[in-house]
Formats: sequence, structure tokens, C-alpha cells
Amino acid sequence: MTIREQLENKINQKTKPPGALGRLEEIALQIGIIQQTLQPVITKPHIIVFAGDHGIATEGKVNPYPQSVTAQMIYNFVNGGAAINVFCKQLGVELLVVNAGVNHAFDSSLPIIHASVEKGTADYSLQNAMSMEQVAECFEKGAAIVHNIFLEGSNCLGFGEMGIGNTSSAALILHHYSGLRISDCVGRGTGSSDEQLRQKQGVLEEVSRLHHLASANLSSQELLSRVGGFEIAMMTGAYLKAKELGMIIVVDGFIATASLLAAYHLDKTILDHCVFAHCSDESGHQHMLNYLNAKPLLQLGLRLGEGTGAVLAMPLIQNAVAFLNEMASFDSAGIDGKTT
Amino acid sequence: MTIREQLENKINQKTKPPGALGRLEEIALQIGIIQQTLQPVITKPHIIVFAGDHGIATEGKVNPYPQSVTAQMIYNFVNGGAAINVFCKQLGVELLVVNAGVNHAFDSSLPIIHASVEKGTADYSLQNAMSMEQVAECFEKGAAIVHNIFLEGSNCLGFGEMGIGNTSSAALILHHYSGLRISDCVGRGTGSSDEQLRQKQGVLEEVSRLHHLASANLSSQELLSRVGGFEIAMMTGAYLKAKELGMIIVVDGFIATASLLAAYHLDKTILDHCVFAHCSDESGHQHMLNYLNAKPLLQLGLRLGEGTGAVLAMPLIQNAVAFLNEMASFDSAGIDGKTT
Repeated sequence: MTIREQLENKINQKTKPPGALGRLEEIALQIGIIQQTLQPVITKPHIIVFAGDHGIATEGKVNPYPQSVTAQMIYNFVNGGAAINVFCKQLGVELLVVNAGVNHAFDSSLPIIHASVEKGTADYSLQNAMSMEQVAECFEKGAAIVHNIFLEGSNCLGFGEMGIGNTSSAALILHHYSGLRISDCVGRGTGSSDEQLRQKQGVLEEVSRLHHLASANLSSQELLSRVGGFEIAMMTGAYLKAKELGMIIVVDGFIATASLLAAYHLDKTILDHCVFAHCSDESGHQHMLNYLNAKPLLQLGLRLGEGTGAVLAMPLIQNAVAFLNEMASFDSAGIDGKTT
Repeated sequence: MTIREQLENKINQKTKPPGALGRLEEIALQIGIIQQTLQPVITKPHIIVFAGDHGIATEGKVNPYPQSVTAQMIYNFVNGGAAINVFCKQLGVELLVVNAGVNHAFDSSLPIIHASVEKGTADYSLQNAMSMEQVAECFEKGAAIVHNIFLEGSNCLGFGEMGIGNTSSAALILHHYSGLRISDCVGRGTGSSDEQLRQKQGVLEEVSRLHHLASANLSSQELLSRVGGFEIAMMTGAYLKAKELGMIIVVDGFIATASLLAAYHLDKTILDHCVFAHCSDESGHQHMLNYLNAKPLLQLGLRLGEGTGAVLAMPLIQNAVAFLNEMASFDSAGIDGKTT
């Protein structure tokens, strides 16, 4: 019997009607297959928040909040005041914050991972966001961060992000891969008005033309170089390493899934390792999930980022593994099966 | 300002775009209003599983599993082997099991709440399931159980159930209140085949005619007397007491919501206290949620009962309360607001 068949048998012998635990049965099966065992475990789950600034955001053309908020939120993370801090603490999940390229000079003593490539990307409405060398640097740094956490005993990661303006980058990535029009890919981000949304669409349509996003056949690295962000590209490197190390990847919302799209186009088997945490209220996220044929666990109308959706899904993943390991079977509990 | 306005202000000053925590913001608001405070707390959350047997289930007319499974599952609960045990343990939620009327003689030393009304209801395809005195006894016992847990310091309860055949009772309750046809109310329960489903529908259509469920104007007590179950009626009493004591009620699936329908028709304001945990895969549950205009938190394809959906929603409720209490505000974190 394959490990899949063995896992299916084990799940069906639990003291419940077949299929009665719904999505949790699918997650248990998936994680058993990832770990190639009938007794999977989740150890030291982490959320890693990658933060970076975007040149496009310096003039407020696509973002209602000023760029300064990215750096201010780093201090908020360090002080434990952000949503992701509260949820990680509540759920016993470790939180790490990475400066992938925020437009601010952080003191080196600040308890974050200092991995800044540069103080924000270039404005991709004028030029490429970053060089190909910087994309490679992001991939390497993201991979190294994940490798360190793996060496400390973690086998389950969720990635979050912070970066004023980064829904624009995510929308452009979706636009390139899916072929959907900009208007289908762009949402309100952190809260644009109708007029701001129209302006954001107009700006991104120009960006698409400048970088030939609708027509060019770009590698993931080329796409990230043109319209990515340091936090997005570093996350792409992190995804690829997590998959290589056989870890469970918990996928957050719109920006995190944009980064996954770039990773997916470099290694399609990464999806076997991904548990999709939630469907964001940011409109383009559903398109991304459709593109990946992914079924998210939660639909809570979240649109915050930071990895908040990923961490909120972790108890479901932990419970899926727990039922597989700890529930009695009909035999062991002496319970009668169906009569018909 | 009303407490609602004060809570809305507090939520909107948190370091996140307005509305970005979606359903969690609604839950935080609801619980603040229930507790009439800007600092709500969840203390000692419990799942209470009410178990009872059904006369209709003795001959296998509506149920693929034999009636004996109800008692066997009680032992499984006591031994920690059921899904609800695993999830409660994983999530730090207390579990109590109540014998409301199982067709089995349990030793009085068994660590369950011994509240049996009788060893199973009468077969409601022939006569009333229970007397009006037994309905009253169920209400009193359910209320007393909740009161004791409240006195121990709990303010948050989810109710689960175990009872072979009880999806039939739940379907009949939905049919009576909603006016929907039996075929719209009946599902596969724990796993009926197509033929069994047709037979179940036929039996329940006869039951509906015998008890005039489609035409009579019945009190909740009369309805429970005709086609209820001891576990369902005891849960109804428990709901009403939990509301009276100002507790948060986490509503599980098809049978738990059927019991809530009976409580709702005795006190419509009970809905202010209810957080709907999930939408069950049992087809009638969506109709119940529509009837109550309720939006469930989770859609995981669960159809197990036992309170499994309720307990899986508890981390979301705890996180909603935690963000309200622990997240920084824009002011306290020194974060810039929108520029436009």
C-alpha cells in the first residue's frame, strides 16, 4: 500500500463516520504525505514577517497610508502591539520579523532579522524595481532564514508581510501570470476610496505597459526584478527553501500568495507542501487561489496581511494532525460499525 | 456614547486598516456588547456533550449505525478517544459529557454527568417521544448543569451531542419551524446510502403527518415532546440558562442548531449571545442558519457533531477578544494615519 492508502485507511478507521471531519481529513492526509508517515507532527510552528518598502509608494499614487508606516509597524511588531503579535502569543506560535528592505535605518540591536537589501525598491512606474542581482540576494537571504529556523527544529512555517504599497506589486504579479486585466487584479489594499482605486488602476495599467507584463514571457526572477518588492522576493526564496526542506507551508493572503506564484513557476511541486490558510477580502486573492486550484481553510474577510490569516489557520492544522495521532479506532474503542 | 459605539471606536483605533480583521472585528464587538465592557474576557470555556437515545433508531429505519453506538461513544469520550476529546485537549477547552437519556446502564462512578431522564425516547413514529413532564425535566437538568459550570467561573460554552438517529429529530424540528419540505430538511446523517436516505425521508414524512408538524402551531415544549430527544431538549434548557446568565454561546452544527431553534422560539434575544461556529455538511444546517440569519465562522465540511465545530471555532473567538484587549492603537504605537 502507498502511504496515501495507509493514511486513508487510518483516517477511515477513526471513531467517526467516513469523511465527517471534512477539510481536517484532507489536511491530515496531506501532512502525512508530506512527512511520509502515519504519525506526522507539527514542531515549533513559526510566522516570519518580511517587510520592505516600495518606490511606487513614496508619492502616495497607490497607497492611502504614507511609506513611513512600514518602519513604524516594525517597531510595533517589536513592541508586541500588532495583530500578528497578539495572535501568535495567543496561539503559541513563534514570530520573527525580517527587514528585507525598509526605508529606515534600524539600530542593529533591534530584535529583528537584519537582512535589508536596500532602503526600498526603485519606483517601478519609472524603471525596474530591483536588479537581477538583488533578486538573487533576496532568494539567498530568504532561503538562509528558513534554513536556520529548520535547524532549530521547526517544520511548519507561515509567511507574512508588511510593506506600504505592496498590494500593487501583488496585483501586477497576478496580472502577469493569470492574464487577467489590471482592473480584475487590483483591490482597495489597506483602504483606498473609489477615486484612489481608479487612480491605482490607472497607474498600474501604465506600469503593465512599461514592463510588457501582459505580453512578455518572464522568468519569476525577471518579473520580481521589474515589479516585485524585497519582502516579496525574499519570501519567494523562503518558500522554495521550505519546500526543499520538506516543511509544511501555511499560505497567507494576497501578497503572500503573489510571492508563492513566483515560487510556483520555479517549482510546481511546491503546492504539495502548501496549506492555504484563508481567502482574503482583497479581491484579487480569489483569482490567485483559482489559478492555483487552491481551497483555503478560512473565509473570515481578513485583509490585513502580516501573516494573520496563516496563524489563525494553524490550530486547524494542529487539530488535523492531532486527530490522526490521538483518536481511537472503531476496533480499539470497541464500537460497532454500520449495520447496513 | 453607547457601548457599541465605544467598542467600534476602540476597534477602529487599532493598528490596522478599518475592517481589516473582518469577522473577528464583528465577534469582538458582539462579545464586548454581551459583557457590556471594552475589556471582555473569555474564562474557562467548556464543551458540554449531551447524549441520548432515540426510539426511532431501534429498528434502523433512519440510521446506518446501531443504537448501541451511543453508549459505546460515551465510553470513548470517557477514555479520551473521540474527536471532541482530541480537539478539546489540543485547544485547552474543558469537556463534560452528560447522559441525558442513553439506552444503557452506566456505572455511577463513570466520570460523566448522570442526568438520564429515561433509557431513550419512545418511537415518535408511533407516539410522542416524551411526556411534557420529561421535557420540563430536561430543561431543568440542562439549566442546572450550565448554572454549575457558570458558578465555577466559565463564561463561554459550546454544546455538542451524541445520539444515534438524532439527525432525524433535528430535521423534523427544522421542518416544523421553517415550513420546508421533509426532503429539504433531511440529510445523510452519519452516512446513509441513497436508498437509506429515501427510506429516512419516507419515515419522517409519515412522522410529520402523525404529529401534524406541517400545520400545527406548537410550543417549543410541545414540539420537543412529539419529536425531540432527551439530549436535544436538555440542550435547549442549557441554552436558555446560558443566555440568562449572560454567557457566550458557541453554536455547533445541525442537531445543536435544532435545539437552539427551540430555545429561540422561547426567547428570541438568545441570538445576541450566539456565535455560530460553522456550517455543517449536513444539508439542513444551511437552512437553519438562513432561518436564523446567522453567519457561521467556519466552513470545513464537518458533519460529526459532538461539539467539534464549536470547539474548533473557539480559538477564533479567543483571538477576537485578544486583539481588542492587546493590540496597540495608532496613537499608542506612534503610527501615521491615512494621508488622504
